[in-house]
Amino acid sequence: MADTERSALIVGVGAIAGLGAAYGRRFAKAGYRVTLAGRTLEKVEAAAEDIRQAGGQAQAIIGDASVEEDAIRFATEAEKWGPIDVAVHNAGTNRRDSFLDLEVANLEQLWREHTLGAFLTGREAARRMVPRGRGTIIFTGATGSLRGKALFAAFASAKAGVRALSQSLAREVGPKGVHVAHLIIDGGIDGARLLAAMPNLREERGQDGLLDPDAIAETAFQVHGQHRSAWTQEVDLRPWAEAF
Amino acid sequence: MADTERSALIVGVGAIAGLGAAYGRRFAKAGYRVTLAGRTLEKVEAAAEDIRQAGGQAQAIIGDASVEEDAIRFATEAEKWGPIDVAVHNAGTNRRDSFLDLEVANLEQLWREHTLGAFLTGREAARRMVPRGRGTIIFTGATGSLRGKALFAAFASAKAGVRALSQSLAREVGPKGVHVAHLIIDGGIDGARLLAAMPNLREERGQDGLLDPDAIAETAFQVHGQHRSAWTQEVDLRPWAEAF
Amino acid sequence: MADTERSALIVGVGAIAGLGAAYGRRFAKAGYRVTLAGRTLEKVEAAAEDIRQAGGQAQAIIGDASVEEDAIRFATEAEKWGPIDVAVHNAGTNRRDSFLDLEVANLEQLWREHTLGAFLTGREAARRMVPRGRGTIIFTGATGSLRGKALFAAFASAKAGVRALSQSLAREVGPKGVHVAHLIIDGGIDGARLLAAMPNLREERGQDGLLDPDAIAETAFQVHGQHRSAWTQEVDLRPWAEAF
Amino acid sequence: MADTERSALIVGVGAIAGLGAAYGRRFAKAGYRVTLAGRTLEKVEAAAEDIRQAGGQAQAIIGDASVEEDAIRFATEAEKWGPIDVAVHNAGTNRRDSFLDLEVANLEQLWREHTLGAFLTGREAARRMVPRGRGTIIFTGATGSLRGKALFAAFASAKAGVRALSQSLAREVGPKGVHVAHLIIDGGIDGARLLAAMPNLREERGQDGLLDPDAIAETAFQVHGQHRSAWTQEVDLRPWAEAF
Repeated sequence: MADTERSALIVGVGAIAGLGAAYGRRFAKAGYRVTLAGRTLEKVEAAAEDIRQAGGQAQAIIGDASVEEDAIRFATEAEKWGPIDVAVHNAGTNRRDSFLDLEVANLEQLWREHTLGAFLTGREAARRMVPRGRGTIIFTGATGSLRGKALFAAFASAKAGVRALSQSLAREVGPKGVHVAHLIIDGGIDGARLLAAMPNLREERGQDGLLDPDAIAETAFQVHGQHRSAWTQEVDLRPWAEAF
Repeated sequence: MADTERSALIVGVGAIAGLGAAYGRRFAKAGYRVTLAGRTLEKVEAAAEDIRQAGGQAQAIIGDASVEEDAIRFATEAEKWGPIDVAVHNAGTNRRDSFLDLEVANLEQLWREHTLGAFLTGREAARRMVPRGRGTIIFTGATGSLRGKALFAAFASAKAGVRALSQSLAREVGPKGVHVAHLIIDGGIDGARLLAAMPNLREERGQDGLLDPDAIAETAFQVHGQHRSAWTQEVDLRPWAEAF
Repeated sequence: MADTERSALIVGVGAIAGLGAAYGRRFAKAGYRVTLAGRTLEKVEAAAEDIRQAGGQAQAIIGDASVEEDAIRFATEAEKWGPIDVAVHNAGTNRRDSFLDLEVANLEQLWREHTLGAFLTGREAARRMVPRGRGTIIFTGATGSLRGKALFAAFASAKAGVRALSQSLAREVGPKGVHVAHLIIDGGIDGARLLAAMPNLREERGQDGLLDPDAIAETAFQVHGQHRSAWTQEVDLRPWAEAF
Repeated sequence: MADTERSALIVGVGAIAGLGAAYGRRFAKAGYRVTLAGRTLEKVEAAAEDIRQAGGQAQAIIGDASVEEDAIRFATEAEKWGPIDVAVHNAGTNRRDSFLDLEVANLEQLWREHTLGAFLTGREAARRMVPRGRGTIIFTGATGSLRGKALFAAFASAKAGVRALSQSLAREVGPKGVHVAHLIIDGGIDGARLLAAMPNLREERGQDGLLDPDAIAETAFQVHGQHRSAWTQEVDLRPWAEAF
C-alpha cells in the first residue's frame, strides 16, 4: 500500500499537536511524500519539520483552501512529488451563537472554511485521481455533520454540507476507482485548538477522554488501505467514555 | 387557529402553479394576511392577485431572500399587516454537474439560494416570533436534504445545510414557543419549474405521480396548527407510487 | 374523507386516557365505525363506551395483537362494520435493564408486543386494503425507534424492528394505493401509563410538556387524510420544550 | 494488541468461503486462540482445520446461537482458552416475501437468528468483558439494518433490531472499557451462500464487485485494534462500484 513515489496532500494543517499534522505524520510514516497545506507559515513549516526529523518526507505550502487558486496550487505542488494517492481535508473552526444573533458573515465564513474548502480539496484531488482510476479522498466531519444542535447553526450547516458533498463525490467517483470517505469525529479532539480554549478539559474528561489526533489519523490510514471490494464511506470515532 | 389579524410570510414565490404560491393560497384561505416574496415581479404579483380573486388578502414584495436587506424588508413588510405567525421558506433551484466540473460560483449560488436564504428567512422570523412566544417557521427540503446523489453535489450540500439550520433553530427556539419544521419533499413537484424542464413527466408518472403543491401546502398548514404538546420537526412527503 | 360506512381498527387500546383510546376517539369523531382492540376487557369497553357517549360508533374486542388468531379476529370483526379504511397499531410497554441482566423472555416479550403485534396488524390490514387499492396503516414509534439508548435495549430493538417493517410495507403497498406511516413519538405521553409510573412528571415538565394523546391522534388523522400525491411515511412529534 | 493467551469467539461460522470463517482466520493470524461456533459440524470443523493448517489456533463448537444454553456454552468454551478479547456475531439468512404472505414463523425465525443470536452473543461477551474493563464486541449488519426494502420485511426488521441492540450495548459498556461496533455490509458478500443462490453474480458484478470476506474481516480487526480515545461504533463497507 505504501509507495515512496506517491504523495499525500493534507489540507488544513495547523499546530503539530493538531489533527492535520497527525494525518501528515501517519502517511509520512507509511512512506508517502506528504504535502502539508495550511494558513500559517510557522505552524505548517513546524509540522513539516517534525515529520522530516522523524525521517519522513514533507513539504509545507501556505494558502487558504477555500480560495480556488490556492486549492489548485496545493494539488499542483503535491503532484510535483508524485501522483496524489490520498487527499485529506481537515477544518475545525466552530462557533457558538444564538441563531437570532448569527451574522451572515459568520455563517458564510464557516461555509467557506468547511464546505467550500472541502469541495475544492475534493474536486482538485478527484480531477487528478479519476484519470488514474485510484486514490482516496478523506473528509473530516464532526457530531454537527449529523445534527444541528442549538447555538451551533453555522457549524452544523457547514459540516452537513461537507457530508453531502462527500456522498455525492463517493457515488460519482467510486465506480471510477476513487475511494471517498467521511469521518465523523464525535467528541473533543485532544489538540491545540480545544485545549487552548478549555485548558482543563483533558483533566475533566479523564484518560483517553478526548480523541487522540494520531488515533484518528490511524483510522484514516486504514480506510485508505482498504481493499476495494469493501470500502468505507462513513465511519464514526469517539472516545470510549463519551456519552452519545 | 386562523386569525385574520395575523400575517403569513411566504419567501420564494414564483409561478401560480408552483409551491410558493400554493403555500400562500393555503394560509390565505385560513384567513391570514399573506405576504408573498419572490424575485420576479409579474409572477409574484400574479400569485397575489390569484389569492385576492379567491377572496384572500395578499401582497407581493420583490427581492432576493439571500440578500440580507431584502430578507429584512420581507419581514418588515409582512409585520405591517400584523404579527407574522407563520414564515415559510421555499427554494427549488437544482442543477446537475459532474463534481469534477462543478464551479465555485455554482456551488455558492445554490448555497446562497437555499442555505443563506433559509437562514435569513428563519432568523428574521425568529427575531420577531421569539419575543411573542409563538409562531411557526417552515423550511422546504428535498430528497437531497438527506443524501448526496452523484451529480447533485451542489444541491445536496445546500439542502443539507438548510436541514441542519432547521434543527439548530428548532432546538433553540422551540422551548421559547416557536415551532420550526422541515418538510422533506421526496419526489417531483407537479409545478411550473419541473414541467417546463420535463414536459412529459406528468404523463410518465401517472395520476398523482408528482406532488401536488396544494397537497404539500396542506401538510404545512397542518403542521402549523399542531398543538404544542406534539410538534413535528420533520415530515416527509412523496407520491404514493414513488420508489424510495 | 370521512365515510360513515367505513371502519377504523385501533389495535392496542388501554385506558381512556391513553393513546389507543385517543386514536379511536379521533376517527369516531370523523364518522368512522371504530373497532377498539386491547387486552383488558374493562378498559377497552370503557374506551368504546366513552366514544358512544360522545355520539360515535365503537365496538370493543379483546385479545392479544401478537397472537395471530387474535390479530385476524380483530380485522375480521372490524370488517363486519365496513371495509377497514384505517388501521393503527399502538404499543407502549417499555422496560429498563442493564444489557447484562436482560433476560431472553423479556427481550422476546417486547419483540412480541411491538414488532410481532405491529406485523400482524399491518399484514391483516394490508391483506384487506390492497385488493381495494385504498386504506391507511399507521404504526406508533418512539424515540427508541431511531436509536438504542443505554438500558433500553429491549425496547429499542423492538421499536427499530417496527420501523423497518413500516418501511418495507410502505414500499410494497404504497404503489398499490395503501398508505403506510410511522409516527415517532419523541417524548413522554400524557397518559395513564406514564403518570402511574411517574406521578409528578406532568408537573415537572410544565404546561404541554408531555404529549397530549389527542394531539398525536390529530396528526394520525391528518396523515390518513393526505392527498395521495403527497403522502407522509414518517413524522416525528414531541413537546415544544422537549430537549432533543 | 495481539496476545497469544487471549481468545476470540466467532459466532455464526459456516463454509470456509464465508464471512464467519474469515473473521476467525483474521484473528487467528494475529495470534488469538479462536473459537468458531456454528450449526453444522463439518463446516465449522473444516474452518477450524483451515486455520490450524495455516499455523493458527482454532477450536470448533457446535450449537445454535439463538438458544441461550448454546450461546452460554460458546462463551464458556472460548474462555477456557483465555479471556475472550473479541466476540463477533455473524448471521446472514435472508428471505424474500410479500409482506402479505409473510408468516409469523418466518418473521420469528429471522428475529431468532439475527436479533436474539446477536443479543445472546453480545450479552455473554459483555458479562465476561465488563468486569475486566476490556474487550470488543462486533455485530455484522447489512443494508437492511438501515432501511426496510419492499419484500424484505423479515430481514430488515431483524437487522434493525440488531443495530439498536448494538447501540444500547455500546452506550452502556463503552464507559466500562468494552468496545461495541456494528458493521454495515452494504452489498453482496463473495461467499458460499450468495454464490450458491446466484452462481453468475460474481461475473456480473465484475472484479471486486462483491465484498471479499477477508476484506470485511480486516476492517473488523482494525476496529478491534483502535485506540480507546477514538472508537468506532458504526462503519459501512461496500464494493467500490456498488450503487448506493
